[in-house]
Amino acid sequence: MADPIDFFFDFSSPYGYFAAEAIEPLAERFGRRVTWRPVLLGVIFKGTGAAPLMNVPVKGEYARRDWQRISALTGIAYQEPTRFPIPTQAAARALLYGREQQPERAGELARAWYRAYFAQGRDLSDPAVVLDIGAEQGLDRSALEEAIESAALKDALKAEVILAQSRGVFGSPFVVVDDEPFWGWDRLPMVAQWLQSKA
Amino acid sequence: MADPIDFFFDFSSPYGYFAAEAIEPLAERFGRRVTWRPVLLGVIFKGTGAAPLMNVPVKGEYARRDWQRISALTGIAYQEPTRFPIPTQAAARALLYGREQQPERAGELARAWYRAYFAQGRDLSDPAVVLDIGAEQGLDRSALEEAIESAALKDALKAEVILAQSRGVFGSPFVVVDDEPFWGWDRLPMVAQWLQSKA
Repeated sequence: MADPIDFFFDFSSPYGYFAAEAIEPLAERFGRRVTWRPVLLGVIFKGTGAAPLMNVPVKGEYARRDWQRISALTGIAYQEPTRFPIPTQAAARALLYGREQQPERAGELARAWYRAYFAQGRDLSDPAVVLDIGAEQGLDRSALEEAIESAALKDALKAEVILAQSRGVFGSPFVVVDDEPFWGWDRLPMVAQWLQSKA
Repeated sequence: MADPIDFFFDFSSPYGYFAAEAIEPLAERFGRRVTWRPVLLGVIFKGTGAAPLMNVPVKGEYARRDWQRISALTGIAYQEPTRFPIPTQAAARALLYGREQQPERAGELARAWYRAYFAQGRDLSDPAVVLDIGAEQGLDRSALEEAIESAALKDALKAEVILAQSRGVFGSPFVVVDDEPFWGWDRLPMVAQWLQSKA
């Protein structure tokens, strides 16, 4: 089987959310798997000097409109969170735990956390909410709680961020396939074309 | 006839170049005209605090790859200019002069300057090159030369930039249609969808 697709994203990224709903069906069409790689954009932005989208004058307001349009276009539910953007360490570590426990369900788990935040009005910056969602998805709540505070998971998340930086990731979502980088929800058609050309 | 589409762009923007090749056929499909509005991204970036793409670490290198892919995807010739990015005052003013003289040929003229820079290796920051291309397109070379140094054209360009800022433009290309803003070459399908919904 051909190499998996690396799907880098931050749980606080709306474009990442929309892409998370599309990447697995896309990959499957070309016989690829997806490796779900949560990262922390705040750390990555420190390296590149980029500013969070909502801090850029004019652009932030534009992005709000863009997300509503993408929702209308794709039919993916979207409701701007009351608190946004948020720190996503807890959700990211929880996904790394889930990915370790049930690798084949990583996408499903990622989408559950993402939907809770971007479609169901739940505050994903609250570790208790992260644990609730994990439990709803069948993960052991207390094992998950222990895990997201463990040094091992903290290190695992740091390693994901370092990997992302080494692959040239500077935004979310960011797809790397066969060393080819694609930034943004709007590049998914180009990812499909790339996979087609390699199929 | 429905309102024209405002197409804002900087002559130094590769994404603007690719969009310039597509916007008129797209508009015509829905019975719209295009108003060609050259702007100066440098001035606009001062207002928003944004950095030129090529100055952002990692992102600039990514963009290079993206332009090659867009060229391959669309079949639009692309050759990265030796000097890039460049100041585009002369080209912008020349287009404003051409638009005034021959409004219906504004798109053709814009594409001629754009192609010279992004496909033919000509240095569009050199006013003499801008004049040469204008003359090749049938504009009076000496009238054009006088125009691009005139206070009237300088003011006209300033007015375009101020208009752009008032419409929320923060990048290139930037389409505004019926007050709806669309940023980027990759949003042209959404522009088409918008026009479809209003047709």
